[in-house]
Amino acid sequence: MQAELLLHPKWIVPVDAAERVLTDHSLVVTGGRIRALLPTAEARADVQAEQEMDLPGHALIPGLINAHTHSPMTLLRGLADDLPLMTWLNEHIWPAEQRWVDPEFVRAGTRLAALEMLKSGTVCFNDMYFFAEVTAKAAADAGMRAIAGMILVDFPTRFAEGPEEYLHKGLELHDRYRDHALIRTAFAPHAPYSVSDGPFERIRTLADELEVPIHIHLHETRDEIVQSLRDHGERPLARLNRLGMLGPNLVAVHMTQIEEAEIEAVARAGSHVVHCPESNLKLASGFCPAARLLDAGVNLALGTDGAASNNDLDMMDEMQAAALLGKGVAGSPSALPAYTALRMATLNGARAFGLDDEIGSLEPGKSADIVALDLRDPDTQPVYHPVSQIVYAAGRDQVRQVWVAGRQLIRDGEPTTLDATAILQEAREWGERIAASN
Amino acid sequence: MQAELLLHPKWIVPVDAAERVLTDHSLVVTGGRIRALLPTAEARADVQAEQEMDLPGHALIPGLINAHTHSPMTLLRGLADDLPLMTWLNEHIWPAEQRWVDPEFVRAGTRLAALEMLKSGTVCFNDMYFFAEVTAKAAADAGMRAIAGMILVDFPTRFAEGPEEYLHKGLELHDRYRDHALIRTAFAPHAPYSVSDGPFERIRTLADELEVPIHIHLHETRDEIVQSLRDHGERPLARLNRLGMLGPNLVAVHMTQIEEAEIEAVARAGSHVVHCPESNLKLASGFCPAARLLDAGVNLALGTDGAASNNDLDMMDEMQAAALLGKGVAGSPSALPAYTALRMATLNGARAFGLDDEIGSLEPGKSADIVALDLRDPDTQPVYHPVSQIVYAAGRDQVRQVWVAGRQLIRDGEPTTLDATAILQEAREWGERIAASN
Repeated sequence: MQAELLLHPKWIVPVDAAERVLTDHSLVVTGGRIRALLPTAEARADVQAEQEMDLPGHALIPGLINAHTHSPMTLLRGLADDLPLMTWLNEHIWPAEQRWVDPEFVRAGTRLAALEMLKSGTVCFNDMYFFAEVTAKAAADAGMRAIAGMILVDFPTRFAEGPEEYLHKGLELHDRYRDHALIRTAFAPHAPYSVSDGPFERIRTLADELEVPIHIHLHETRDEIVQSLRDHGERPLARLNRLGMLGPNLVAVHMTQIEEAEIEAVARAGSHVVHCPESNLKLASGFCPAARLLDAGVNLALGTDGAASNNDLDMMDEMQAAALLGKGVAGSPSALPAYTALRMATLNGARAFGLDDEIGSLEPGKSADIVALDLRDPDTQPVYHPVSQIVYAAGRDQVRQVWVAGRQLIRDGEPTTLDATAILQEAREWGERIAASN
Repeated sequence: MQAELLLHPKWIVPVDAAERVLTDHSLVVTGGRIRALLPTAEARADVQAEQEMDLPGHALIPGLINAHTHSPMTLLRGLADDLPLMTWLNEHIWPAEQRWVDPEFVRAGTRLAALEMLKSGTVCFNDMYFFAEVTAKAAADAGMRAIAGMILVDFPTRFAEGPEEYLHKGLELHDRYRDHALIRTAFAPHAPYSVSDGPFERIRTLADELEVPIHIHLHETRDEIVQSLRDHGERPLARLNRLGMLGPNLVAVHMTQIEEAEIEAVARAGSHVVHCPESNLKLASGFCPAARLLDAGVNLALGTDGAASNNDLDMMDEMQAAALLGKGVAGSPSALPAYTALRMATLNGARAFGLDDEIGSLEPGKSADIVALDLRDPDTQPVYHPVSQIVYAAGRDQVRQVWVAGRQLIRDGEPTTLDATAILQEAREWGERIAASN
C-alpha cells in the first residue's frame, strides 16, 4: 500500500462506537484521509509511506473540537475576574468590547486563540463573535477548521446596526465560505434575552432552507429563566419551541437550568447541547446535568466558552473538568466516564454541526485530523488505561503533533503555520493598550 | 549588599497580608533565605550576587504546598477509574495495596510523585501512607520538604499488626527526623471509621506532648456520617470533639459534609481544613463549602489527594479547580477569588502544619522556596492581572524554575536532584508487573 503518512504510536483511541483502544497499531493517511488502522507489524511490512513517524509512548486521539467559544476574547483574558456577573459585564466586558472590537482586534484575538487551541490539540472551533469573516479567514490561514457564527443581536454594535444588517452580513459570510474545505457557518442568534421573535423566525426559515445549524446560548442562568417568564410568559426553551426552532439543527449552549420534561423534549427533538463546565463554574451560572442529558440520549458536546470566562481555551482541561464535575453533579463516581468525556470533546462536537461524516473519530474514510499525545511524562505514568490518563491526568503540554486533513499544523509542540512570536507580540501590544485605558 | 542569588522577574506575588503584586521587583537570597524584595533598578545597582537570573515575563510565587496526598499511590494512577466507590476500594485499590505495597513500592512511587510535584511547582507535601520513613527519605534525598504521616488504622497491614505497632513505628520516624531541615512529621490516624477511641486518645495525648499536628480524613462522604451515627450515636466531628481532638493541631481533610454549627466549631477551635476539590468530584463525595469555611475564618489549605483519585498531583490545576468550584458551590462569581486560591495552595498549607514562620510566602526572613512561572505562553497572554493568569489559565508546564531553601531543584523545567529517566523506567516496570496480575 502507498501512503503519504504512516504513524506508529503505542495506542490509538479511535472514539468509535465500540469504545476501543488499539495497542501497537499504526495509522495510514492517503489524500488527507485516514486509509486504515493496522497492526504495526503489518503496516511496517506492507505500507510504503512518504513520511513515517515513530511515536513511542504516544496515544493518537481525534483532533479536539471546541464546540463553543468566542475566540477573539483571548485579548480580554483576565481583564476582570472574580466579580459579580452584572458588574463584570456592564462595567468591564461590554465597555471594553464597545471601545475596542474592530476587525484588527478580531484578527489578533483569533490568531492568539488559534495558536493556543492548536497547541492544546483543538483542530476545530465553533465561534460566536463580531466580524466573523475575519475569524474565518484567520482560522483558514492557519489551516484550522472553524464554524463561523452568523451573529445576531437586537441592538446595534460596531459590527452592525440591527437585525437586518447582522443577517445580511451573516449571509454574505455564508456565501463566501459555501464550498470551503475548512470553514463552515452557523446562525448564531446570541440568546433568548437579546433576540426578539421576528429575527428568530427569519433565522429558523433560513436555517431550514440552507441546512445550517443554529448556535445559541440557552438556559445559561436562573435570571434568564426569570426574565423570560416575566417578558414572554414562558421559559426560553418553550419560546424557541413555539417559534419552531427546537429541532436537529439547534445547538444549545450551557443548559444549566433544565427540567426533566425539557431534557426529554431536547432529546426527542434531536437538538444538541454544548456543555461548558469551567465557564458555568466561574460565572456561577449553575450546574448542567451532563450525565442526565447523556442518559436521555442527548448529543452532548464540549466547549471552553470565551477566554474572559474560563480563562483558557484548553480542551484537555475541559475534558477533565467535564468528567470530574459530571460525577459530582450526578452524585456517582461512575457517571461520565473518561471515554465519554473524550467523545464529547470530539465526535459529539462533530455531530452537533453535521460534520460527523468528516471528522470527530479516527476511522477509515474520515479526514486525517489527528492529535498525538506523549504519555511518557511523570504525571501520566504508569499507563494502565490510556484514556484515563488522557482525560484525568494529561496536560496540553503533552500534545506533541497535530494534523488537520493530513497537514501537520503542530510539530514537536510548535506551530508550522502560525508565527508565534508575532502573534504574542501583537497580543501584548493590545493588552498594553487596553490596560492603559481601563 | 552581598547575596547568593538574585532574581529579576517581571512580577512577584509574595502572598502577603496586603495581597500585593510587585512589578519590576527583584528577590535577594542569602543563606538559603529571602533577604529582600527590591525595585529591580535598585537591586541591579546595590546587590552583588554569586548568581543573577533574568526572568522576563515570569512571575515568582511561593513554592506550592500540597496539604494532602498519598504520594506512593502514583503507581496505581488510573488502575481503576469511573467505578462505584466500594467497587473501586474493595475490588481494586485495597487488593492492589495488600499485594504490592512494600518499601520498594513506596520508594518508587514517592520518587515518581516527587518528580511530578517538583515539575509542577510543589515544594512541600503532607503525606499519609504506609512505610512513611521511605517517603521521608525519598523526599529529603530530592531536596524537597515533606510532612511524613505517622499512619494508624485499627486493622493489620503489611506495615504493622495493629495500633501499638503503628504508633511505635510512627514515633521512631518522629525521633529520626526530629531536627531535620526538610522533614516534619504528623500523626495520621486514617479516618473516624478506621480508628477506635482508644488509639485516638493515645494520639491526642502524644500530639499535645510532642506539639505535632494530627492529620485525618474527616466528613469525606455521607456514608461516613451515617455509619458514625449508627456506631457511635454521634457525627464524626462530635466524636473527635468528645475525645478532645478538636483543636489548633487538627488538620481535617475533605469536610464535604459539614453543618453550619460544625463550621463555627471548627473555626472557634482553630482547626484547619484541607480542601481536595478534584478528588471530591471524582469520587462524588460531595461539595466542600470552601467559600463558607473561609468566610467563617477557618484556615483552608489545598491538596490533590492521591493519584488514584485525581489522577495527578498538580497543584496548579488544583488551584484552578478550587477557585472555579468554590464559585459554583457558593453560587457567586466573586467567591473564592484567584489570590485566595493561591494563598490556600501556599501560606494556608504552611499554617496548617505550623510552618508559616518558615515557608508559604515570599517575605524577608523566610526560606527561599520559590517558583518561577513563565507567563509568556499563548494561554496566559495578554497579562492584565498576573494572579488571574496563574490561577485560571497557567499550566504546570509554565513552571520553569523551582528552589527549596535556596537550592535549585528544577532548572528550565528539568529536575536537578532526581534522575527522571530512572524514575520513569522504574514506574513503567511497576505498572507492567501490577497490570499483569490485575
